[in-house]
Amino acid sequence: MTSLAIDYRGGGVFAARSYEPSWPGPGEVGIAVAFTGICGTDLKIAHGAMDQRVTSPWPIGHEMSGTIDSLGPDVTDWAVGDKVTVMPLDWCGDCPACVRGHNHICHHLDFVGIDSPGSLQQHWNVPARLLVRLPDHLPLRAASLTEPTAVAVHDVRRGGVTDSDQVVVIGGGPIGLLISVVAARAGADVLVSEVSPFRRDLAAKLGLRTVDPSSEDLTAMVFDWSDGKGADISYEVSGSKAGVQSLTDVLAVRGLGVVVAIHTEPTPVDLMAVFWKELEIRGTRVYERRDFEEAVELLASGDIPVDTLITDVVPLSETPDAIERLASGEQIVKLIVDSR
Amino acid sequence: MTSLAIDYRGGGVFAARSYEPSWPGPGEVGIAVAFTGICGTDLKIAHGAMDQRVTSPWPIGHEMSGTIDSLGPDVTDWAVGDKVTVMPLDWCGDCPACVRGHNHICHHLDFVGIDSPGSLQQHWNVPARLLVRLPDHLPLRAASLTEPTAVAVHDVRRGGVTDSDQVVVIGGGPIGLLISVVAARAGADVLVSEVSPFRRDLAAKLGLRTVDPSSEDLTAMVFDWSDGKGADISYEVSGSKAGVQSLTDVLAVRGLGVVVAIHTEPTPVDLMAVFWKELEIRGTRVYERRDFEEAVELLASGDIPVDTLITDVVPLSETPDAIERLASGEQIVKLIVDSR
Repeated sequence: MTSLAIDYRGGGVFAARSYEPSWPGPGEVGIAVAFTGICGTDLKIAHGAMDQRVTSPWPIGHEMSGTIDSLGPDVTDWAVGDKVTVMPLDWCGDCPACVRGHNHICHHLDFVGIDSPGSLQQHWNVPARLLVRLPDHLPLRAASLTEPTAVAVHDVRRGGVTDSDQVVVIGGGPIGLLISVVAARAGADVLVSEVSPFRRDLAAKLGLRTVDPSSEDLTAMVFDWSDGKGADISYEVSGSKAGVQSLTDVLAVRGLGVVVAIHTEPTPVDLMAVFWKELEIRGTRVYERRDFEEAVELLASGDIPVDTLITDVVPLSETPDAIERLASGEQIVKLIVDSR
Repeated sequence: MTSLAIDYRGGGVFAARSYEPSWPGPGEVGIAVAFTGICGTDLKIAHGAMDQRVTSPWPIGHEMSGTIDSLGPDVTDWAVGDKVTVMPLDWCGDCPACVRGHNHICHHLDFVGIDSPGSLQQHWNVPARLLVRLPDHLPLRAASLTEPTAVAVHDVRRGGVTDSDQVVVIGGGPIGLLISVVAARAGADVLVSEVSPFRRDLAAKLGLRTVDPSSEDLTAMVFDWSDGKGADISYEVSGSKAGVQSLTDVLAVRGLGVVVAIHTEPTPVDLMAVFWKELEIRGTRVYERRDFEEAVELLASGDIPVDTLITDVVPLSETPDAIERLASGEQIVKLIVDSR
């Protein structure tokens, strides 16, 4: 049976390729890929900004769901027909980070779908150690949000969010909204700061408080909202310099600012505020296994508003066009690719 | 009995003034000031950089020791002859920071010696609530280091330093050295990064490992020292942009960078490293009462190398000249003023 893959060939170029799936190797399973979400990192790759990591022509894609269709030698615990997602982190187990239990930020981490082939194809062989089981009743479409939901679960865990916290989320894209939803579910009072009216409307539909920082004074609003205290926790998910300034501006004394967005260049941080208010700034990257498993539980329990977040579904063959549309800032929140 | 005060008059100008000490008011004690240390903040004031806070002609100075020589009405628990230091923080007790127990970073903090008159005078009336008792056997000269030692104790507490930590202190001035000494006393393995050979020699005399970041690759050295792991905790005490870059460069995965120096402008921070290694950046400001009391204990037990740190003692009348010498970067670590 011939399958279709969308290879990323470097320099911002994608190309379709037909192939005959190979049988999974020892310890691997073959997956009939169902859905793959496209994220901000995929857009960076598509702009050629990560060509030093995506070194060979192969499919990218790391937010996926699918069904096992073949088992390689030495695979136990899994069966053909099992619904799965892949936690796309492959670590060494030996470096100082792994030895201290922080495998997810291994010094030699292989981020599957970036540093090695991903799921933008119809049939994908992956090591069984990366699999995460999906409940039978969880639709594969919803399950394609497991990875970004795990990011949000990890971010909320890193923020130590509790039900007494006032939380400001700066940036209402897919990750910002997922963080907001997960933090609200933890009982926090959440305010989403987002310039796009489309995304603000969507956040409002999810029951979240919103503010447009381009027309309102975000900091004044937060201090008003919190009776002069400031926010307990803020999340920088916008990737903008203004967002980094707001991260510290809005915080209460001893508040915590969590840096979620990737800032590739050293970025001005208001260290005077960090000093004056004894703030903390905390980095957060990907997720741990427990975050992935909690994400599956949240999706299975219906706590993630999948239908509101997934605004676009496109067939695999249209991936390059879809990535272009997403990059152009069209009114999309989450776009997923259907490989079935 | 006529006393001498050194008033700061704004615009970088100091002037001597003779005065007849007034009797302490209700709840106040009168202190015969013995010694006052001059710190980096005093130098900033002397350069006119804080004229919006030091608004009237009055003596600055907030690192002091002395002896009670008079008691105002309603003062209990204190007697003439008691040796004391002043914890120079006066808080409101009502703001959101105070209500949450963070009085030392009160929204309306009065930093005595900056926002109100300080100890660069011979006789000083202060509210008894600011007093901290000194043991009789602790020399007043050594006790003048209580405040900067309390800063270091607070910084080490905020860093959560343990005996399994490798700690890099960037900047070997008085506070950097005190942090190093207090962290080493907590059992940590400490490396001091300092460009001045004079201060490096002094750090070495204190038994500390040193590195000159202008001639050696600090990051490479730290990763070598830690077998590829990186430092567990780093302290930015240099006030330089290079120091802020090193703060994150030297850290291990999940390491903690503590910002001690005051950076008045937003400063580039390597947020990519914060993300990649899931780092924390933590601000620290002044001290809590328990830090002050622990500082007195450390000084009383001889654990602070007072004689090595105090490189200069000058009479009160020579304060303006001494501040100029200190600012010029002469080979001074800690300079204290004798008011007796």
